[in-house]
Amino acid sequence: MKMTVKPYDLDTGGKTVAVLNSQDALELGVYSLDRVVIETETDSVTAVINTSERFVHPGEIGVLDEIKEKLDVRRGQQVEVYARRPLKSKEYIRRKIEGVELTTEEIKEIIGDVVERNLNDLELTALIMSFHLRGLSMGESTSLIQAMVETGDTIRFGDVVCDKHSVGGVPGDKTSLLVVPVIASMGLMIPKTSSRAITSPAGTADRAEMLMPVELSLEEIERVTKKTNGCLVWGGALDLAPADDLLIQIEHPLGVDPLLLASILSKKKSVGATHVVIDIPTGSDAKIKTPEKARRLADQFVNIGKKLDINIQCGVTLGEQPIGYCVGPALEAQEALRTFASKGNSDLKEKVASLCGILLALVGKAHSREEGTLMARKALEKKAEKKLREIIAAQGGDPDIAPEDIPVGSHVTEIYAETPGIVRWIYNPSLVRVATAAGCPKDRGAGVRLHKKMGDTAHKGDLLMEIIAEKSHKLQQAEKVAHESAIMGIIDRWENHMLLEHLSSETG
Amino acid sequence: MKMTVKPYDLDTGGKTVAVLNSQDALELGVYSLDRVVIETETDSVTAVINTSERFVHPGEIGVLDEIKEKLDVRRGQQVEVYARRPLKSKEYIRRKIEGVELTTEEIKEIIGDVVERNLNDLELTALIMSFHLRGLSMGESTSLIQAMVETGDTIRFGDVVCDKHSVGGVPGDKTSLLVVPVIASMGLMIPKTSSRAITSPAGTADRAEMLMPVELSLEEIERVTKKTNGCLVWGGALDLAPADDLLIQIEHPLGVDPLLLASILSKKKSVGATHVVIDIPTGSDAKIKTPEKARRLADQFVNIGKKLDINIQCGVTLGEQPIGYCVGPALEAQEALRTFASKGNSDLKEKVASLCGILLALVGKAHSREEGTLMARKALEKKAEKKLREIIAAQGGDPDIAPEDIPVGSHVTEIYAETPGIVRWIYNPSLVRVATAAGCPKDRGAGVRLHKKMGDTAHKGDLLMEIIAEKSHKLQQAEKVAHESAIMGIIDRWENHMLLEHLSSETG
Repeated sequence: MKMTVKPYDLDTGGKTVAVLNSQDALELGVYSLDRVVIETETDSVTAVINTSERFVHPGEIGVLDEIKEKLDVRRGQQVEVYARRPLKSKEYIRRKIEGVELTTEEIKEIIGDVVERNLNDLELTALIMSFHLRGLSMGESTSLIQAMVETGDTIRFGDVVCDKHSVGGVPGDKTSLLVVPVIASMGLMIPKTSSRAITSPAGTADRAEMLMPVELSLEEIERVTKKTNGCLVWGGALDLAPADDLLIQIEHPLGVDPLLLASILSKKKSVGATHVVIDIPTGSDAKIKTPEKARRLADQFVNIGKKLDINIQCGVTLGEQPIGYCVGPALEAQEALRTFASKGNSDLKEKVASLCGILLALVGKAHSREEGTLMARKALEKKAEKKLREIIAAQGGDPDIAPEDIPVGSHVTEIYAETPGIVRWIYNPSLVRVATAAGCPKDRGAGVRLHKKMGDTAHKGDLLMEIIAEKSHKLQQAEKVAHESAIMGIIDRWENHMLLEHLSSETG
Repeated sequence: MKMTVKPYDLDTGGKTVAVLNSQDALELGVYSLDRVVIETETDSVTAVINTSERFVHPGEIGVLDEIKEKLDVRRGQQVEVYARRPLKSKEYIRRKIEGVELTTEEIKEIIGDVVERNLNDLELTALIMSFHLRGLSMGESTSLIQAMVETGDTIRFGDVVCDKHSVGGVPGDKTSLLVVPVIASMGLMIPKTSSRAITSPAGTADRAEMLMPVELSLEEIERVTKKTNGCLVWGGALDLAPADDLLIQIEHPLGVDPLLLASILSKKKSVGATHVVIDIPTGSDAKIKTPEKARRLADQFVNIGKKLDINIQCGVTLGEQPIGYCVGPALEAQEALRTFASKGNSDLKEKVASLCGILLALVGKAHSREEGTLMARKALEKKAEKKLREIIAAQGGDPDIAPEDIPVGSHVTEIYAETPGIVRWIYNPSLVRVATAAGCPKDRGAGVRLHKKMGDTAHKGDLLMEIIAEKSHKLQQAEKVAHESAIMGIIDRWENHMLLEHLSSETG
């Protein structure tokens, strides 16, 4: 059907959307969210249809930013519009819904359409839900990862490329900021890409950004890694496994995560990682709740790793409380920097050393995990700080940055112990809500600084934590959240506190 | 946050959508598809968020038609915008995803949010997918139907109200156009609401509309039914179980139908039906493919009917070929009208009489189904036509309408038998594609008229079917589809045709 372009200044987040008058849509035999092909004399594009009674008249096609740019059309221009043949992917998604195991070819077709933005939100959600509820076989996972890697950019640094990744779910986890310089300081390559926070208080990219620029191009990443052996960059702007980024946009709001494994391994494969340690924080409120589940997941990582030619080992780590004392991008970057000079052991140092130990043994740099752990401890005390500052310089940051140079919020509330006892638990979800209310992750200087952790004794009136915000109204909000929710469980003796919760029929 | 209204002339099909600048969204802590509350001094509305970098500036809120009308705001007006607390429904949907059986209260909350348009497409799709993949218990189905009925309008005609419904899936099924006048002619009330075609060639409302107006208000339906005992109206514009209409918009494009039962019974309960016959067309290419599955479905209908105080019986009917000879709104309306005067039996008459027989026995008007069937046959010959014309008049149509008064397309292609034999099967999906290509359901006068049906002998050169279109280019398109797909299987003797299909590895 010949139609007249009516451009519209509305961006749709990368989706190619066109608006047809309802009458024309009926005439073309398409419905809202169906696809049409829009053709000019030189080019064509597939668009998802919205229909409207008033916004466009019969004979007009409302063209939003993305299409306008792709097709280079102007107001009043004539284009040819016709219904697109049904996507094969749609049929494959339907098969998966019905419980059929998909073939490599079918998965390739689906991921191709994901990356081409051919699938609408309904179809993407149905896909994610079928993965979540039907599960993925080992073969499907492998095909999925391969298709995700193939539809994006890839880098190849060399024959031995180390990497580290956490499945996430524990706040304050600045481990990567230290693992990268430790490993790089031993002459091993570790080009670490990471993500920003979506709803957590801070992602590794947010933390690293307090120390140095993290939005590097592929060429810059190559340059930095070749020069210093390591990097700490944001993966989001790169085109590494872009299907993963698009599918996360659907998974996240639904609170499901069927592609956890594929998401992590597609990114690792894209940067050519050959030896990878996966951190699986495990705790009653972490993403992975029991050691049994952690072991199952670890087993899958290792086995799919074999199929992808990646040597993978996993560390199941304590995920019951934050790592270190600080939560929030600036506070965590400060804490990471201060670790090098700090005396004695800490949960953060211990976690970094353990994961590095696994990686060093895996890659053959140490004879055993224990030896690797010792090597990592030594590196943390000596050469890792220098290496981190080299990386900071190579990425364009100030290599002399001191913890005090990182600005944090000036609005602070202190929370004190009301009863004496021992800190028996820290409830991470509440802590995350407080940090988020205080402004994380947008307000970089906001967050929470703990003064007691699990096992510490608290006397009445002891400082338990500080809540820090850049804006006073957000501090007020965070205080409100903190007072409404139990963050720390301080119990003197269990024999006085056997009843943990009283559930009435109104609960839930 | 105080924001300035920027109205936008774009309708979103009833969805309340607002556009925020990405910076403001971050500040409010909301993401695309999250919800905000927009407040004026006198009113407030919940809106789903789209974010944009350019379309609105920081401090502005882009307000689409639905919100503009609901809130009665104008350009430049100040409104208060804040993040809406998370919906309880979202948590309940997550429970269903994880396999938990939902309570009546939880289902009420979800359906309430469906009707209030509080759930976005991702959440609605996740809901439908969890129903599809986890299944619905009898208790969940009952609660769902009750919630669907309660959130819409209801009518109560009297103590005995008959109804008939088909689960669908067989083309040319004009049965309802004849069941309604037969039942009404016996002094029983049968207020029949029906739907329009979405992708099928014709819905009952489309067929009825060729004879009379079908877009009646609730008051008009009451008036017509009280006067004539029956009506044939479009249910779509009424507010009967509106949740069903909204959920169908998600189910349909995904090709899943987990709410088949709830959809039908919520509509029946809304019109106060007390005695209902459900037609379950069964055939290898129908919606229900085997008698075993039909029986299971029938069992569910009957049992949920008991919980809803509706007396239900089901008829499993032959769904292997179209009902009657015509497919397409106008052609089918003609065929229905001609049935009264036609001699002898036909599959259409037989189906109408059988279903009426079940209903007449169920309601106690006949002593047995067989007696009811005989009564219905007699009515078809005598008083049903008069009753249909009464209903036509009451709904504002021409009671003297003749089949020839209904216009059909003037572009016709005839298809002839190329080999002699007996028509062994008619492939409904191909037939539907041809009728759709010819212009159905939009072009009312388009469709297919069969001249042979299953079991008929065809000599070489015999007329098998006519394809009818209003527009010549659509006729060409339909001819192309007809030649590419096998519609009729004409086989002389099976011993010459044992190979039905040859499947190679490219098939699928």
